[in-house]
Amino acid sequence: MNIPVVFWLVPFASLCALAMAWYFFKYMMKEDEGTVRMKEIAGYVRIGAMAYLKQQYKVVAIIFVILCLVFAFMSYVLKVQNPWVPFAFLTGGIFSGLCGFFGMKTATYASARTANAVSKSLDRGLRIAFRSGAVMGLVVVGLGLLDIALWFILLSMFYEGENTALVTITTTMLTFGMGASTQALFARVGGGIYTKAADVGADLVGKVEANIPEDDPRNPATIADNVGDNVGDVAGMGADLYESYCGSILSTAALGATAFAINGDMQLKAVIAPMLIAAVGIFSSLAGIFLVRTKDGASMRDLLHSLSLGTNVSAGLIAVATFIILYLLGIENWVGVSFSVISGLAAGVIIGMATEYYTSQSYKPTKSIAKSSETGSATVIIKGIGTGMISTMVPVVTISVAIMASYLCANGFDLSMSSESISKGLYGIGIAAIGMLSTLGITLATDAYGPIADNAGGNAEMSGLDPEVRKRTDALDALGNTTAATGKGFAIGSAALTALALLASYIEEIKINMVRAANEGATFIDNLGNTFNPENAGLLDMIDFFQVNLMNPNVLVGVFIGAMAAFMFSGITMGAVGRAAGAMVEEVRRQFREIKGILDGNATPDYGRCISISTRSALHEMVLPSLLAIVIPVVVGMILGVAGVLGLLVGGMSTGFTLAVFMANSGGAWDNAKKMIEEGNFGGKGSSCHKAAIVGDTVGDPFKDTSGPSLNILIKLMSMVSIVMAGLTVAMI
Amino acid sequence: MNIPVVFWLVPFASLCALAMAWYFFKYMMKEDEGTVRMKEIAGYVRIGAMAYLKQQYKVVAIIFVILCLVFAFMSYVLKVQNPWVPFAFLTGGIFSGLCGFFGMKTATYASARTANAVSKSLDRGLRIAFRSGAVMGLVVVGLGLLDIALWFILLSMFYEGENTALVTITTTMLTFGMGASTQALFARVGGGIYTKAADVGADLVGKVEANIPEDDPRNPATIADNVGDNVGDVAGMGADLYESYCGSILSTAALGATAFAINGDMQLKAVIAPMLIAAVGIFSSLAGIFLVRTKDGASMRDLLHSLSLGTNVSAGLIAVATFIILYLLGIENWVGVSFSVISGLAAGVIIGMATEYYTSQSYKPTKSIAKSSETGSATVIIKGIGTGMISTMVPVVTISVAIMASYLCANGFDLSMSSESISKGLYGIGIAAIGMLSTLGITLATDAYGPIADNAGGNAEMSGLDPEVRKRTDALDALGNTTAATGKGFAIGSAALTALALLASYIEEIKINMVRAANEGATFIDNLGNTFNPENAGLLDMIDFFQVNLMNPNVLVGVFIGAMAAFMFSGITMGAVGRAAGAMVEEVRRQFREIKGILDGNATPDYGRCISISTRSALHEMVLPSLLAIVIPVVVGMILGVAGVLGLLVGGMSTGFTLAVFMANSGGAWDNAKKMIEEGNFGGKGSSCHKAAIVGDTVGDPFKDTSGPSLNILIKLMSMVSIVMAGLTVAMI
Repeated sequence: MNIPVVFWLVPFASLCALAMAWYFFKYMMKEDEGTVRMKEIAGYVRIGAMAYLKQQYKVVAIIFVILCLVFAFMSYVLKVQNPWVPFAFLTGGIFSGLCGFFGMKTATYASARTANAVSKSLDRGLRIAFRSGAVMGLVVVGLGLLDIALWFILLSMFYEGENTALVTITTTMLTFGMGASTQALFARVGGGIYTKAADVGADLVGKVEANIPEDDPRNPATIADNVGDNVGDVAGMGADLYESYCGSILSTAALGATAFAINGDMQLKAVIAPMLIAAVGIFSSLAGIFLVRTKDGASMRDLLHSLSLGTNVSAGLIAVATFIILYLLGIENWVGVSFSVISGLAAGVIIGMATEYYTSQSYKPTKSIAKSSETGSATVIIKGIGTGMISTMVPVVTISVAIMASYLCANGFDLSMSSESISKGLYGIGIAAIGMLSTLGITLATDAYGPIADNAGGNAEMSGLDPEVRKRTDALDALGNTTAATGKGFAIGSAALTALALLASYIEEIKINMVRAANEGATFIDNLGNTFNPENAGLLDMIDFFQVNLMNPNVLVGVFIGAMAAFMFSGITMGAVGRAAGAMVEEVRRQFREIKGILDGNATPDYGRCISISTRSALHEMVLPSLLAIVIPVVVGMILGVAGVLGLLVGGMSTGFTLAVFMANSGGAWDNAKKMIEEGNFGGKGSSCHKAAIVGDTVGDPFKDTSGPSLNILIKLMSMVSIVMAGLTVAMI
Repeated sequence: MNIPVVFWLVPFASLCALAMAWYFFKYMMKEDEGTVRMKEIAGYVRIGAMAYLKQQYKVVAIIFVILCLVFAFMSYVLKVQNPWVPFAFLTGGIFSGLCGFFGMKTATYASARTANAVSKSLDRGLRIAFRSGAVMGLVVVGLGLLDIALWFILLSMFYEGENTALVTITTTMLTFGMGASTQALFARVGGGIYTKAADVGADLVGKVEANIPEDDPRNPATIADNVGDNVGDVAGMGADLYESYCGSILSTAALGATAFAINGDMQLKAVIAPMLIAAVGIFSSLAGIFLVRTKDGASMRDLLHSLSLGTNVSAGLIAVATFIILYLLGIENWVGVSFSVISGLAAGVIIGMATEYYTSQSYKPTKSIAKSSETGSATVIIKGIGTGMISTMVPVVTISVAIMASYLCANGFDLSMSSESISKGLYGIGIAAIGMLSTLGITLATDAYGPIADNAGGNAEMSGLDPEVRKRTDALDALGNTTAATGKGFAIGSAALTALALLASYIEEIKINMVRAANEGATFIDNLGNTFNPENAGLLDMIDFFQVNLMNPNVLVGVFIGAMAAFMFSGITMGAVGRAAGAMVEEVRRQFREIKGILDGNATPDYGRCISISTRSALHEMVLPSLLAIVIPVVVGMILGVAGVLGLLVGGMSTGFTLAVFMANSGGAWDNAKKMIEEGNFGGKGSSCHKAAIVGDTVGDPFKDTSGPSLNILIKLMSMVSIVMAGLTVAMI
């Protein structure tokens, strides 16, 4: 294989990202961690977080070993899978876990330092927090792209000279995506349950019953809450977005290998293109990150401006650089493919803006949720759910337009619906997903910086720093909320596009397995009784053979089950948070009752018990929903076949996407409605409106931080599992 | 056309149903209405309900006139529709409205009479309430089947001798279904908003703030609340189930006409079969209704037993009678088709049982929601939402199994996926929907009896009757809740099956319009450039021509938009209830503040103002969501074509079904968790647990009585609109 020189940009970019991450980490570590008390509290949080992560990795490791054995059995005994699969699966999981680990390590070192820096000046604090967030962003893109590049080089050497080398390589690499997905799901679900059990428990007793402020050291759940921010919002999110990032690149590469199969040279270019766009994205992100700097005495508005400037410049750079790099690569229809990138990028920005509109207290929806607190908590909930459901419109329409636009741009507006035109169009959809995620280096930085600021605030409160410090960290945190909303838009939008692209990869994987089976003597008979030869079958031939149309009851039943899977998965994670939070509430109440003097500040609460409740609940509750995501596609494949699986995936992604947007936006809006009241509207803190709004915020916590984001992963993991298990499905035809 | 003699059972059965409805009405009217105060209160409610219904019909009439003009334009000017459409549409709407009107009239006369009868004996009260409910059940099935029979006879005479007569007749009659759907949607949405605005408003101020019991005459919203039960739970439900009933019969008849098109004799039988099954169902329901009788001094358990006996016997009779009637009719594969009926019936029963499990206080889910009230209202909400989402599993799996079973039974386990085998299979799915609804006469009676008992309780409370009377009506009401849960299972399950069957009707309607266009000189070119002749195209040829497969981006985008439509529709109706309830709360608070002496019982509240707030809100808020349901499929058809519409319908029905089950079950579970606490558990009435549970119940109100049930109609109405607008879509190909 003649890998073009321009490819080497990919490993280079990833190494640059990792080097910069190291630099930013060092930069943060140089800052002083503050008073003894600050160090002590940061130490509690750090130890709690690391202890949890270790426990979580242990549980996940067991599941990985089991899955690896299954894959090894399928690869070496049943021989329905390629021999690299178990290894690819493992590295995906390990790298994804590493991202969470590094991100969290940085975050737990950064919080006290941010609090300390902020006590000197607001913009110094911003820089510490933001650059620590950038460590995570850069580690994710750096490790992700490095891993992809290494595997690609390794497999290219191994399959050198084989006819279908690129198809084999890219579909093998997809299993690497499944490893990342699996790890991400556990991290998101486990972390999400941990953080929300602590958060909800702390709020319900602390704020509502005992009337003490957030992060008050008298609250026994407060350290667990701060640990939760790290394991959920940092480690969980890192693993999640690592998975999105790699998943979109790998699935698009696989689509490229199929769509351009008839032209070896162009095929290689189509496989490399997604990696190159991602590499260019790293440089743009780095440029954006360096732009985030402020003058002394900057106002909040300036800060927001400076963050937006960073992300907008990154996006602008990417848009221009894409044209150049794809032209240099010499890919067919480079202008059209570039426009696919831009349609993804634009869709991400629009979804982000819509999210902001529906969740920010500057606009009508959140304002009217805040107002509905005047008639009690029930109307807050009704209004918030209603708003969240309505808010699905813009994202769905946007993603629909992006799907059509990226499809048509990439296949040159070919409406003929031939196998080739469809394949190229789907490749365009994958490219759009990459466009959306190309600025991940900086968008993730703005995302990860939120929990760091949040923890800095907690540290300031618990260490008894000047209230002015807390006010400043609150300002940083609020800023983080706005940017986090945009980040969530990118995450869910790219998940939908990636999942769509994976549909075609699934069919390709089925075909590969059918060819293998045919070579071993299997024959396939279509519904008219003719022999079907998979070797030369195009996408449409496969679709015809399996009758993947909307009159096939298997497809219809699959769609229903997909819709159900999304709801059930959310229901289980909601229930888990409810149970865990209930246990936490009981424990906090018990401590208030039994340990005399906590509320007067004369006795120290037993933080450790609360931490261990969150830990135990999270580890215990994360297994069922995660296994469900793995088991459902396998069972559907065995009963309803290929058509049923495709129905399942389509039903899961459409319902999952809409449900995720609804839950994320309801949750965000409740959060900000509460903040709006805390700022003095509708009676302010402690008023009956405030109490009503807290109920909304509490319900919103698992919505936006547990169930909602986990759905992103669910829809992709179901696709990944289907792909990896394709061999089994074919064996049962 | 040689209509077989057995057909005349259809009009005969419908006349029997209407006659028995008249008899039960008279039976109820003979009962004394009680004291002057009781009559007065019943009069308020009756006048308020009728006034609202009149207003609602006025608004709906305007919309019907507009739609009729559109259809007339399409029929007579554009000539893309058959000339009967405007008339069929109108009668569907009028008959559906009539059902609501008769049902509500009966209910408003029955409430005081039930209260009066119950003061004499529990079982006398049961009989009055149940037989009044039966009036509604019998009017719905009687009018529905009568209308269908009359239209069928009329159109048979008109199209006598034409080749494709039966296809034309049945697809024309489908527009009658659209009329019913449109009317039902307005009735459900408007009634749902009315009742829940009043209910939520009354509860929030009365129970939570002023600490006065439900239905207390001091509460200004209490009459509006009782009116709401009638306009929402009676009139709205009547129109809804009228539509389900007719829709399933009409769509199955249309499928029969297509599936058996090659054999004229069998085709006629296949068209008549669904009507005959429904006719047999009427007799079985009547038998069941007469079984519902108790001895003096019967316990609650006996009452429940007697109700279950009625419905179970009806179901059993239907199962047996189906075999006989289909054998007599002489339809091809009569055993298989009979098993399709039974699979639908069984699915309905299983879904009903699952609903009961998830919503009854005898089982774990509702118990743990009640328990979660110990940690406050937020955990009640989280737990309830989680439980509702998880509860979607059994219904979805059941409906999936029913889809496969009814499909395979009806086409003789033919897996070949030829056009003919698919058509026959889809016909089986339609037949399953009819099986599920065949016992509607009695299941609707058990459903409609609930609000009557509820209103009787309100009347007893407000008239100051002996508390023992209230206790008895509460017992009747609780019994009604259990049976209503089963009824909801049937309603949503049949909606999904009917919507599935309508998919094929849509394709048939597209084909009819293509043939018409082809006769007028249009030509159709497929994606390979060949001319496509719609005349002899089978279902699969149509599917191929329009590329209705899961790799077509139009289909995929359609599925996404369908999922969104369900969420958006629910969001808008939730928002409407939130707004209306907020206005109601303000008004009740104002009256307590401004009219001195209300709470001491020295002044009468201004009931009228509350009634007019509910009325105005309902009329104002029902228009947008209802129009949305009509506009979305038209717009999708114009932009994404036939493939997009089919995607939309599949996405809408899968997400809509799951969402509806989730919302109905969460709402039901919250309601019963609250009741469980009121019965003395977890601190009983007035405790903090009770307050937390009331928040859950209040949120659940619009879930289970506004948004959830409206989704049933949404998924069918979108299909109906697509079918009626098929001519326009074809004109744009």
